[in-house]
Amino acid sequence: MNAWKGQDVISTMNWEREAMESVLATAEKMNVAFRKKQRSTTLNGTVMASLFFEPSTRTRVSFKSAMRLLGGEETAFGDPKTSSSAKGESLYDTVKALETQVDVFVIRHPNEGAAAWAAANTDVPVINAGDGNNQHPTQALLDLFTIQQNKKKLDGLTVLLAGDLKYGRTVHSLAYALSKFDGITLQFYSPSTLRMPSFMLKDLREFVKVQELDSMNLADADVIYATRIQKERISDPEEYRKASYRIDLEVMKHAKEDAILMHPLPRVDEIAVEVDRDPRAKYLEQESNGVPVRMAVLSMILGDRS
Amino acid sequence: MNAWKGQDVISTMNWEREAMESVLATAEKMNVAFRKKQRSTTLNGTVMASLFFEPSTRTRVSFKSAMRLLGGEETAFGDPKTSSSAKGESLYDTVKALETQVDVFVIRHPNEGAAAWAAANTDVPVINAGDGNNQHPTQALLDLFTIQQNKKKLDGLTVLLAGDLKYGRTVHSLAYALSKFDGITLQFYSPSTLRMPSFMLKDLREFVKVQELDSMNLADADVIYATRIQKERISDPEEYRKASYRIDLEVMKHAKEDAILMHPLPRVDEIAVEVDRDPRAKYLEQESNGVPVRMAVLSMILGDRS
Amino acid sequence: MNAWKGQDVISTMNWEREAMESVLATAEKMNVAFRKKQRSTTLNGTVMASLFFEPSTRTRVSFKSAMRLLGGEETAFGDPKTSSSAKGESLYDTVKALETQVDVFVIRHPNEGAAAWAAANTDVPVINAGDGNNQHPTQALLDLFTIQQNKKKLDGLTVLLAGDLKYGRTVHSLAYALSKFDGITLQFYSPSTLRMPSFMLKDLREFVKVQELDSMNLADADVIYATRIQKERISDPEEYRKASYRIDLEVMKHAKEDAILMHPLPRVDEIAVEVDRDPRAKYLEQESNGVPVRMAVLSMILGDRS
Repeated sequence: MNAWKGQDVISTMNWEREAMESVLATAEKMNVAFRKKQRSTTLNGTVMASLFFEPSTRTRVSFKSAMRLLGGEETAFGDPKTSSSAKGESLYDTVKALETQVDVFVIRHPNEGAAAWAAANTDVPVINAGDGNNQHPTQALLDLFTIQQNKKKLDGLTVLLAGDLKYGRTVHSLAYALSKFDGITLQFYSPSTLRMPSFMLKDLREFVKVQELDSMNLADADVIYATRIQKERISDPEEYRKASYRIDLEVMKHAKEDAILMHPLPRVDEIAVEVDRDPRAKYLEQESNGVPVRMAVLSMILGDRS
Repeated sequence: MNAWKGQDVISTMNWEREAMESVLATAEKMNVAFRKKQRSTTLNGTVMASLFFEPSTRTRVSFKSAMRLLGGEETAFGDPKTSSSAKGESLYDTVKALETQVDVFVIRHPNEGAAAWAAANTDVPVINAGDGNNQHPTQALLDLFTIQQNKKKLDGLTVLLAGDLKYGRTVHSLAYALSKFDGITLQFYSPSTLRMPSFMLKDLREFVKVQELDSMNLADADVIYATRIQKERISDPEEYRKASYRIDLEVMKHAKEDAILMHPLPRVDEIAVEVDRDPRAKYLEQESNGVPVRMAVLSMILGDRS
Repeated sequence: MNAWKGQDVISTMNWEREAMESVLATAEKMNVAFRKKQRSTTLNGTVMASLFFEPSTRTRVSFKSAMRLLGGEETAFGDPKTSSSAKGESLYDTVKALETQVDVFVIRHPNEGAAAWAAANTDVPVINAGDGNNQHPTQALLDLFTIQQNKKKLDGLTVLLAGDLKYGRTVHSLAYALSKFDGITLQFYSPSTLRMPSFMLKDLREFVKVQELDSMNLADADVIYATRIQKERISDPEEYRKASYRIDLEVMKHAKEDAILMHPLPRVDEIAVEVDRDPRAKYLEQESNGVPVRMAVLSMILGDRS
């Protein structure tokens, strides 16, 4: 019945449409409770361990809020500097140290494959909350949820993904997730040095129409998904300046009237603050959807009570 | 009825005597519960978000204890190094990310006006837990509470404020709060480079008698309020040595027999540990008053149930 | 009846066999509840303050899990960089600031004697969770518990302690604890610069047979207790290489068939990961025993309800 029960959540690459739809349907119910600040007792007595080997505020807090609203608890681990990893503690030993004390791991780690490797070494379910430049699957779910809430469908959409497509894990996760829906066109726009990895383009072309744009052309997109370009990625300041883009109210004039503008946040300069008042700006709503979507994921993994 | 309900707590500058008295009266009731370690269910199901962009132990823990004793919960954010602000996360976006998940913000930030700006951008009540060199209003309330507990009044007192008066936000908040009571004399003693800002002196003179002392003269003070002088503020070590003061048992001989000695803590060398045994030393009691006073503030802002 | 009630837990040096046996007996009961993830209400409404002035994951989480399973709560303080100690906050003032808000302190500090000093200055019970190179008494209790679970006795054992014996606080605590049992032989193996402090050897010789080995000879040991050698301790890299040891499956061939291999973790290279599959490897079980043992300690200190 519930394909998520006891499962790890590592990558969107092999997800099925049905599994995504079931979690989105649960998220819709959770969203009602969340907006009313209603708490349930579904996960009373369960503990989620947050292992964050990279800084984060929003993802960690969103998981914590989700757990709290379901009646469960969080036990958190700081960043490398303040935790045992400073003494050479490995992810492996940390997971082994904690597996008897917790019911689910949420892991963010700078290395690709870290969550998968942790999952291979413990019977406790593992949720990947970002592994290096690879994947961030619960972000993809909340992105899908936001699209569905606003466009009332997930099929037949043209989605423009812009920014750092090479290292951007949210883009990778969302592109693979969308590729399982029908009639999707994925448009990619990035600096030439930060293009979508070619193996991913090849994978995606099997399922969807792929277009690489050579300018920030918003005209055809139903969904515009902007992401940050990190300064560290481009050594030459002049290159960085050219690679950067900025969506302001002027740029938004070129977008469809019923398009939606998304961003996984935090933003730096990609979207001007003035755009917040454009009714098409959905990134703050998108972010707040993190809680109900993670409530759905946690309740489906940890119980059958949803 | 309750002037605090749903309000932000940003600055003591425009507080009315009546509003302060109402929170002090509530704090007195809370203090009884606190000393008996009695927990209430007043704030069951509510969440306080602690956004600390500067290191702190005592303020954060005191707010957390207050919330816990009222039945509520805390969700905490680390310092800039361990949180998303390392990636350029702005206070604005952090507040927007969390406003749907929490019932009140407690914000400490290195910039003056940070809490006010946050409050202008969200409907969730904001409590300023220190904004740069500007204000720390709940500290002023616990200071008033300590004075009232010991002197049995807030009118007609001579209060000596000593140390770093230029950058000391606790001094600023307390001075403005006291200025609304009757018959107050404020005495100021500081190194010449760290004097009370002149615009504040001007404001205060409208309400109270102001005296700037040129030596650490304790003789007339009913309340001696000592604060730290941070080494970083004075570049020349010789200057620093001259600027520093130290209250030991010898110095306390010059104070009134019924004076009280306060300090917002942490102290470095301003007050010798030997002074802890002097019955006039009230800084540890003062500090522990942080909990009942913050219980009063939180319960008045978040409920009408007090 | 309960020798632990209201007591501080600072050092194993003067522990009595009976007191250790009583906490181990309680730990056995707690272990049943822990393995079934059963929660009790024994410590409902009590608060443990974790004061960690050094990085740690496992000790802190283990105390927190213990407290949670007993129905109590934790209030945590970050490392020096993120807490008030960055402004010169002393341990003394921190303890005084918190003593009215909590029921027990758990303190880890880089200075020897820090926990003892804190305990001398507050009426709230203090548990030493590691003070510099001195002691880590609850680790000794979980080590004893692990030995007893596996060897079915604590008398008559030969225990090999290897690694950094000079600075290794877990070794110090365990050696003194074991010395109160009958027929114990303690074997020590370390680089020459990191030998067991001679005053400790002298103390221990009064109670037990002591042997200093000049090679990693596992042949006679019923219990092999390996510890890390920190690179920083040995300045010459060549010296460090010589001083290092590594236990792999080949080395384990020389150990008794019914020996057990322990390590306080985290490990770096002292024990190869391949050894995890050797049935004599007990360090992961040992680590998970931290929770029931700390449940026993906390419940005996804070209540009489065990």
